[in-house]
Amino acid sequence: MTGRAPAPPDPRFSLNQQTVRQWSLPELAAGCAAAGVRGVGLWRGPVREYGPAAAARLCRDAGLTVSSLCRGGFLTAVDPDRRRAALADNRAAVAEAAELGTRTLVLVPGGLPEGDRDLAGARERVADALAALGPYAARYGVRLAVEPLHPMFASDRSAVSTLRQALDLAERFPADQVGVVVDTYHLWWDDTVAEQLVRAGEGGRIAAFQLADWVTPLPEGALLGRGQLGDGCVDLRWFRERVDATGYRGPVETEIFSPALWARDGAEVLAEVLDRYRRYVTGIPAVTERSLITPSVTER
Amino acid sequence: MTGRAPAPPDPRFSLNQQTVRQWSLPELAAGCAAAGVRGVGLWRGPVREYGPAAAARLCRDAGLTVSSLCRGGFLTAVDPDRRRAALADNRAAVAEAAELGTRTLVLVPGGLPEGDRDLAGARERVADALAALGPYAARYGVRLAVEPLHPMFASDRSAVSTLRQALDLAERFPADQVGVVVDTYHLWWDDTVAEQLVRAGEGGRIAAFQLADWVTPLPEGALLGRGQLGDGCVDLRWFRERVDATGYRGPVETEIFSPALWARDGAEVLAEVLDRYRRYVTGIPAVTERSLITPSVTER
Repeated sequence: MTGRAPAPPDPRFSLNQQTVRQWSLPELAAGCAAAGVRGVGLWRGPVREYGPAAAARLCRDAGLTVSSLCRGGFLTAVDPDRRRAALADNRAAVAEAAELGTRTLVLVPGGLPEGDRDLAGARERVADALAALGPYAARYGVRLAVEPLHPMFASDRSAVSTLRQALDLAERFPADQVGVVVDTYHLWWDDTVAEQLVRAGEGGRIAAFQLADWVTPLPEGALLGRGQLGDGCVDLRWFRERVDATGYRGPVETEIFSPALWARDGAEVLAEVLDRYRRYVTGIPAVTERSLITPSVTER
Repeated sequence: MTGRAPAPPDPRFSLNQQTVRQWSLPELAAGCAAAGVRGVGLWRGPVREYGPAAAARLCRDAGLTVSSLCRGGFLTAVDPDRRRAALADNRAAVAEAAELGTRTLVLVPGGLPEGDRDLAGARERVADALAALGPYAARYGVRLAVEPLHPMFASDRSAVSTLRQALDLAERFPADQVGVVVDTYHLWWDDTVAEQLVRAGEGGRIAAFQLADWVTPLPEGALLGRGQLGDGCVDLRWFRERVDATGYRGPVETEIFSPALWARDGAEVLAEVLDRYRRYVTGIPAVTERSLITPSVTER
């Protein structure tokens, strides 16, 4: 560990707390403040455990803006009781987002109910829910951000698999009510994503921009195998440039689900993320060719 | 186990040998003949081990047509030696297909070389290889069948993730040289697949039609988690009807990679596949409402 300290982080950089799940909320706030990070993406579970008002105060005191709250959604149930419960839960999420001072509530749309084979029908039920929730959220100053998930999650998490499908849904509603999430992990493989980013930008629909890299082999269940920035095959800089070219000037959130990262010291992980972000996302070269940080243990 | 014997299988039904990997080639030939199955899809490994000429004789003697040979491909290497080796291997696969009397050589296109992030470039290298291999294969009466694989395999197995991408590649070449594989497991999630099937049919590009169901959770590596027909959320009958509507009259191959199926008696698995095929693919009702076969152990 030698050399000068790295430059301050990109002011648009935000750390999604799932990247450092080993940190409590106070640890997250302190760790981000110490590293000069100005934004965090939060998750409902830890926020509710800590208390939304207390969490909001914690972030404010640390000089942190909450870039997004993850997650609402799961809006594809057919059963009326389940649908009512899902809508109520999403209304609660809207209120939590407002309390945290973020404009962006990330929605994971939901997959197929047991025994169901109709993805188009599931997407229609998401649309119905957006119609109910959009005006409600707007009253709180919160925008619903529909997240297309990788097609490997189509059956169990999201019938919305592509940015085009997400925009098809979002564009049925006013842009201040419903936007989309652009997450490199979910969209990197899709050769129509460039044109859909243009479409998203023109409509002012990009509500969140999230980063993770794609690495293989996928773990069982496919959920917790996201790669540290630069460890995989996603052209992150290409995404950043394309998203910037749409006119989006919002937060750039790093959200990596990785047990390998969670097993390490949180501050070390954050420093590594910031270093990788400089090298693979913004293109600002690192302080030295050999980074201050050791290579990620998630290296393939 | 009571009731009448089931009706003879659909003459277009073909059993891909990976579905009953526990069977040797002679067991496969005998088992299919006993069940009235008239087509098999073979894999190069077991065929080469047994000897292509002997395998061809074995199938002929059992009254079996070889619907496809799996698989050639992996055509995305940048390194010149690796590219040469891949082309040589694919020429050998063409000869093996011809010896087996099948017109269809399934190609898994290949993913990204180590450190590479350029999927479009990888697809171009597939196109270059098809240009070299297509006329060669045609001289053997063999057609190259480009298989789009689910986007979860984009980095390590196939830069071709959608039927559209596969057709974009195939249509650069004569239809008797290059076609595509329609595999429900890989394509089920894609809401553009209906229009692309029409396109494929109009161009006479459907070289193979393969069936497996989508079940979760995915296993580690994602490769061996395919579902028995009817166990998952793919609308198999919809696919069959759409593919038939294109004018395709070729084999309908069931290809399921599933350790749960491999752990069972091969004849029992084949009987179950045939029963499920009747119930979920052709729509011909089973002999009795309660099938002769016990529910698959791969049930979610």
